[in-house]
Amino acid sequence: MRYAVLGTGVVGTTIAAKLVSQGNEARLGSRTAGEGKVTYAEAARWAEVVVNATNGAGSLEALRAAGAAALAGKVLIDIANPLDFSKGMPPTLFVKDDDSLAERIQREFPEARVVKTLNTMSCAIMVDPSRLKEEHDVFVSGNDKAAKDFVAELLRGWGWRNIRDLGDITTARGTEMLLPIWLRLWGAIGHADYNFHIAM
Amino acid sequence: MRYAVLGTGVVGTTIAAKLVSQGNEARLGSRTAGEGKVTYAEAARWAEVVVNATNGAGSLEALRAAGAAALAGKVLIDIANPLDFSKGMPPTLFVKDDDSLAERIQREFPEARVVKTLNTMSCAIMVDPSRLKEEHDVFVSGNDKAAKDFVAELLRGWGWRNIRDLGDITTARGTEMLLPIWLRLWGAIGHADYNFHIAM
Repeated sequence: MRYAVLGTGVVGTTIAAKLVSQGNEARLGSRTAGEGKVTYAEAARWAEVVVNATNGAGSLEALRAAGAAALAGKVLIDIANPLDFSKGMPPTLFVKDDDSLAERIQREFPEARVVKTLNTMSCAIMVDPSRLKEEHDVFVSGNDKAAKDFVAELLRGWGWRNIRDLGDITTARGTEMLLPIWLRLWGAIGHADYNFHIAM
Repeated sequence: MRYAVLGTGVVGTTIAAKLVSQGNEARLGSRTAGEGKVTYAEAARWAEVVVNATNGAGSLEALRAAGAAALAGKVLIDIANPLDFSKGMPPTLFVKDDDSLAERIQREFPEARVVKTLNTMSCAIMVDPSRLKEEHDVFVSGNDKAAKDFVAELLRGWGWRNIRDLGDITTARGTEMLLPIWLRLWGAIGHADYNFHIAM
């Protein structure tokens, strides 16, 4: 499968490496083409599936550069968070509670099949859930059932066992609003090797 | 120990019953005195420890009625959430991200020793963590170390094993912002018998 991974930071490159290691093709999309990367538009047009791994503040701009036509009909896996670093640390969220980044993306690109997932943990855990000894969970939100099924299958291939479908894309408000406690746990625990589990 | 439990809803009565079952005295505080309840002020003046189990929208008003003098120097266990039902279901939060209900309470009553805890689960689980088979966690936030130690000891007496001290009272922003996903999990799971665990 051909994946465009938009965003060339640690998250984007980690996701792309994982996809390639499992027999997929991946292109890293960036504002400008360069060594090992193409433009957002080139990556998205070529791809069958698009991953938004840009930072949240730049996500809509990156997706506009990719272009609505290149996203139409494709699964768009949104793993970004609407973090606002302008008020210092820890960051706040620039959208929350009555809207979410995932919904903004879905509204602006109604023909993309947006699935919010993986935004509630470090990228090391995203691609290797077995690095935690205890059971832990990944959440999925989206309006398109088949797109969520596709993403769940991808996640199972990465070793995910507890995949929680929260419902439609508005449920991304819940997972994006996990960031504030995630950040404070990081401070309290002193490392990022933890994740949420819904215990029963 | 003498506990004032402010709020006579299911949460308040559940907490008060648990406290009494463990050999404490408890009085339920309400806007108006009546069968089985006294005023906020009477309950708080009499008590050594105060529990805020009012609904979040009425918490500051209830605590004002209790009176700053009656709260001064006492541990004030805040288990309320800043839920706003005015925009329909699911509720949003009337304060979040750059402030929290717990901080508002601490700011208005600087001599109270506010500890935010227990606000991230159903009240059945609050008082009986053993009803879940898996490991799960309760969070604690507050500026007063001795007050947090007191609350942790109380929680251990209720069976809590994983008590996570997140830090000062500002970390309550994190736990209050768990409500949006808690509510959506309720929808997805179909019952409220679950809780968060920080898996490692």
